[in-house]
Amino acid sequence: MATRAPFLTTPFGGYYHRDVPQEDAELTHIGPGTPCGEYLRRFWQPVCFTDDLRDLPRRVTLLGEELIAFRDGRGAVGLLELHCPHRGTSLEFGLLSDRGIRCCYHGWLFDVDGTILETPGEPETSTLKDRLCHGAYPTHEYNGILFAYLGPPDQQPPFPRYDSFIRPGYRLIPGRQYFYPCNWPQILENAMDPVHTAFLHTIVTGAQFTEEFGKVPELDFIETPIGMLYIATRRVEANIWARMVEIILPNLQQVAPAWEDGHYVHPFHGPMMSRWIVPQDDTHTMFIEFRHVSETAGVTPSWWADRGVMLPGQLPESDSYEASQRRPGDYEAQVSQRPIAIHGLEHLGATDRGVLIFRQQIRRVVYPSTADNSIGPKTW
Amino acid sequence: MATRAPFLTTPFGGYYHRDVPQEDAELTHIGPGTPCGEYLRRFWQPVCFTDDLRDLPRRVTLLGEELIAFRDGRGAVGLLELHCPHRGTSLEFGLLSDRGIRCCYHGWLFDVDGTILETPGEPETSTLKDRLCHGAYPTHEYNGILFAYLGPPDQQPPFPRYDSFIRPGYRLIPGRQYFYPCNWPQILENAMDPVHTAFLHTIVTGAQFTEEFGKVPELDFIETPIGMLYIATRRVEANIWARMVEIILPNLQQVAPAWEDGHYVHPFHGPMMSRWIVPQDDTHTMFIEFRHVSETAGVTPSWWADRGVMLPGQLPESDSYEASQRRPGDYEAQVSQRPIAIHGLEHLGATDRGVLIFRQQIRRVVYPSTADNSIGPKTW
Amino acid sequence: MATRAPFLTTPFGGYYHRDVPQEDAELTHIGPGTPCGEYLRRFWQPVCFTDDLRDLPRRVTLLGEELIAFRDGRGAVGLLELHCPHRGTSLEFGLLSDRGIRCCYHGWLFDVDGTILETPGEPETSTLKDRLCHGAYPTHEYNGILFAYLGPPDQQPPFPRYDSFIRPGYRLIPGRQYFYPCNWPQILENAMDPVHTAFLHTIVTGAQFTEEFGKVPELDFIETPIGMLYIATRRVEANIWARMVEIILPNLQQVAPAWEDGHYVHPFHGPMMSRWIVPQDDTHTMFIEFRHVSETAGVTPSWWADRGVMLPGQLPESDSYEASQRRPGDYEAQVSQRPIAIHGLEHLGATDRGVLIFRQQIRRVVYPSTADNSIGPKTW
Repeated sequence: MATRAPFLTTPFGGYYHRDVPQEDAELTHIGPGTPCGEYLRRFWQPVCFTDDLRDLPRRVTLLGEELIAFRDGRGAVGLLELHCPHRGTSLEFGLLSDRGIRCCYHGWLFDVDGTILETPGEPETSTLKDRLCHGAYPTHEYNGILFAYLGPPDQQPPFPRYDSFIRPGYRLIPGRQYFYPCNWPQILENAMDPVHTAFLHTIVTGAQFTEEFGKVPELDFIETPIGMLYIATRRVEANIWARMVEIILPNLQQVAPAWEDGHYVHPFHGPMMSRWIVPQDDTHTMFIEFRHVSETAGVTPSWWADRGVMLPGQLPESDSYEASQRRPGDYEAQVSQRPIAIHGLEHLGATDRGVLIFRQQIRRVVYPSTADNSIGPKTW
Repeated sequence: MATRAPFLTTPFGGYYHRDVPQEDAELTHIGPGTPCGEYLRRFWQPVCFTDDLRDLPRRVTLLGEELIAFRDGRGAVGLLELHCPHRGTSLEFGLLSDRGIRCCYHGWLFDVDGTILETPGEPETSTLKDRLCHGAYPTHEYNGILFAYLGPPDQQPPFPRYDSFIRPGYRLIPGRQYFYPCNWPQILENAMDPVHTAFLHTIVTGAQFTEEFGKVPELDFIETPIGMLYIATRRVEANIWARMVEIILPNLQQVAPAWEDGHYVHPFHGPMMSRWIVPQDDTHTMFIEFRHVSETAGVTPSWWADRGVMLPGQLPESDSYEASQRRPGDYEAQVSQRPIAIHGLEHLGATDRGVLIFRQQIRRVVYPSTADNSIGPKTW
Repeated sequence: MATRAPFLTTPFGGYYHRDVPQEDAELTHIGPGTPCGEYLRRFWQPVCFTDDLRDLPRRVTLLGEELIAFRDGRGAVGLLELHCPHRGTSLEFGLLSDRGIRCCYHGWLFDVDGTILETPGEPETSTLKDRLCHGAYPTHEYNGILFAYLGPPDQQPPFPRYDSFIRPGYRLIPGRQYFYPCNWPQILENAMDPVHTAFLHTIVTGAQFTEEFGKVPELDFIETPIGMLYIATRRVEANIWARMVEIILPNLQQVAPAWEDGHYVHPFHGPMMSRWIVPQDDTHTMFIEFRHVSETAGVTPSWWADRGVMLPGQLPESDSYEASQRRPGDYEAQVSQRPIAIHGLEHLGATDRGVLIFRQQIRRVVYPSTADNSIGPKTW
């Protein structure tokens, strides 16, 4: 648990509140060997879009590891350690081959599973390539996104297929990818925080989604067998508008349509997107989305089927600091919590119950013996 | 005290003089809890110009603390901790309100004294806002500059009004603000170093002020009840020209006019400016000036009443490294002493008596039990 | 010796191979007081081209030390500590004088041996300048390159003149200078690695030198009394082509002509260049070359006598990351081994015998009691 700053009760009391506690390492550190990092590695994680794997290898950082993703001439996809096991040259300068990737420096050739196929400068009698493997991770392509499993090989789960991915009448398409220079929970927690849509996205900056978001809703937070969801309920004219957003642990969000606002009666349309919040390292995070597009005219706006268009508010509109000050969005609100938000300086309220449950759920799995289990039974 | 490098006495002896001692932490570290930082906090310190507080909040770093300055709709000025006490979002993206500033993320509203006026997403029964304060510091506007007191509340001194600020026949106007990427004493000491005006500002680079500065003066250093001053005396034709510069501890300079040079007889005109050297953090310093403008024609040059014009030599004339090499000024001479000047590598001479007295005065106050008090009695 | 990562034998085994060992400090750390740094200091090292010493001083970093090189009005060359011994101002802003260099701040004047010639602000009775020296190193100009000796003064060797520098029928001219943001052995080892010419410079990227380099050669590595050399032997049509590259310890390479390829019979032409790989600090390295130009028409291509033209492959052709990926050269292959290559992650093969001998030779001299001496007798 994070150490806490004093609870300040004095006006003009800044002098008593200057020390910055350490970050909450239990939830925020994700490198190899950290408890939370090992937990995240037990799940298939998105790496990049599959159509980014063309005629050049693609360097990625994932969970604190430097890696290279590529598609070889057969169409097989590999995710390997970035640095060649021979002398350390980066495979981002490697040559894609009919089978595998070849290091530019001495031509060693690696298959997608890490097998060393050739060490061409070595004598023909060399057995090094038969004894040594390069570090590799299993991958899975699904619907335009490349996923990888970075956990212990004997614990590899099947690739999950959620019901929302295979709904009749819906297409699942790859959407956009975003990079925030900050730690991961402060991004993911935003999805369990329906109140911010009333303030950040509506009252403070003018309606980024619709005007109805500006009403502070009634809130229900519900733990599920695989995570949690919230229901934000508002009265809109004669209707009751219930908006639901789900988290599937550890780092997948399913977000209700931003264009719905309760003005007309319609059936439940499910999520507009499924989005993973993927730590690159402790202070950089990538998120990547599948978009759900209805095949029924009028249900999904046409711009949502266009990958070139992004959801409003995800990135600053320009490089102008003044523009960010005048019209902040999720990027400003989340990144400015510091590179790693300091939980010991927070004061959570009733509306932060979703944030608390999310952290508690993570803690229950990662630190089962020390976590406070009072919120609910361990369901994961 | 700083550890010292060996006293090198050998030509071609670089080999014996390679180690760089630690900086003199006693005088150079100014963060919360450091002895010198706590000393600086016992005085009202300038924050920014008051006319920089318009329709957006202004982020500042002061004595190692991240803060936000703003003026609300009533005209009240606040200086608060930068990060919202709720979830840590930076208030630089906050919305100025009729009273106080509102965080962009969930709309919490803070008064200028840190009182939490609203937590709008929270239930009406919530008492959090009545029990919790946000960190705030008292401020004082004076003549176009915003000042703040960052020290212990029970030790808050009255805002000082020096005689030079209220001289009959003079206007006090806000001037310019400069930012140097280095530690603070190496900037402030420049004011107790009249010899550099002969070399840096005249002989080495051509006259930046007037030709008469190129004569090395006779020097007197005098401790005062509130700091020290020097008198640099030169013979100019048949006249005696005595130039005086004062330091008011800990970090205020009063600098004699740079345009006077003893060529004609005139009464004492007092300082051209009062300037604070304010540490932002250990390696960044801001200075900010009041200018003294005479209402008598011919005493103060007209350009000095124009805030758009700066005193020569305070900043490099361009981004060109070659131009800085060919015509260095105070910026190059002071910043290039390293981000924090290493006192243990210095060799001070007779002309550095002002520097020594300044450091000794600081040390006498901050470390009274260990300081060498031989220079004079403790007057502060 | 470096700690080693596990030997990975498992396909898809990245999970077992995530930890990055520490760098091999014994060979890669070169600052003052490090064993390898002290070893490098026992040799004359290149500083810069002498024609870079014109009317401004030149700041250089060498073996982890910040220095200033300059030529005074007499033509004498100095290499001094960067920071003035008075108050620390950088001498890169100093004024070149008829004799020595003058600090811009207070005008102290330093001779090329570190003698303090003037402290003009000090009283005439001051003896400081007679007792104190500034740090200085002995220099030697040779053929357009400035060299310096940074080692213990009582161990200063004569400046070496190798037979290749004074060959009848050849001119020795200064060539080019390169800066790589990485540690030094990973650059120098490239010269003892003839196999990379077949892959990096030919097969992977298309012929950067000549097509014949694309054949993997027979290799001989031979220790010499002053270092080592390799002979790379290829059959070219009816000829035997033997290419030789030499290392003179600790950091001088003599490289065979890149334009020879065995297609015609000719006498031994000696090296095309003599090149020093000089650490600036642990993660930045400069190399600088003498070019050997034959006075016999047709032996040396005319472009090699033109300092404006560089050997292909030494630097990226543009700032484009994609261009570097498509056509990597020595820069990409060596720099991407990390700022300091991690020996504990390497797997050296038969073709890396030259790399092993080089490291072993350094280790034998620097760590004589612990090094494995099995490769050969200590010859240095």
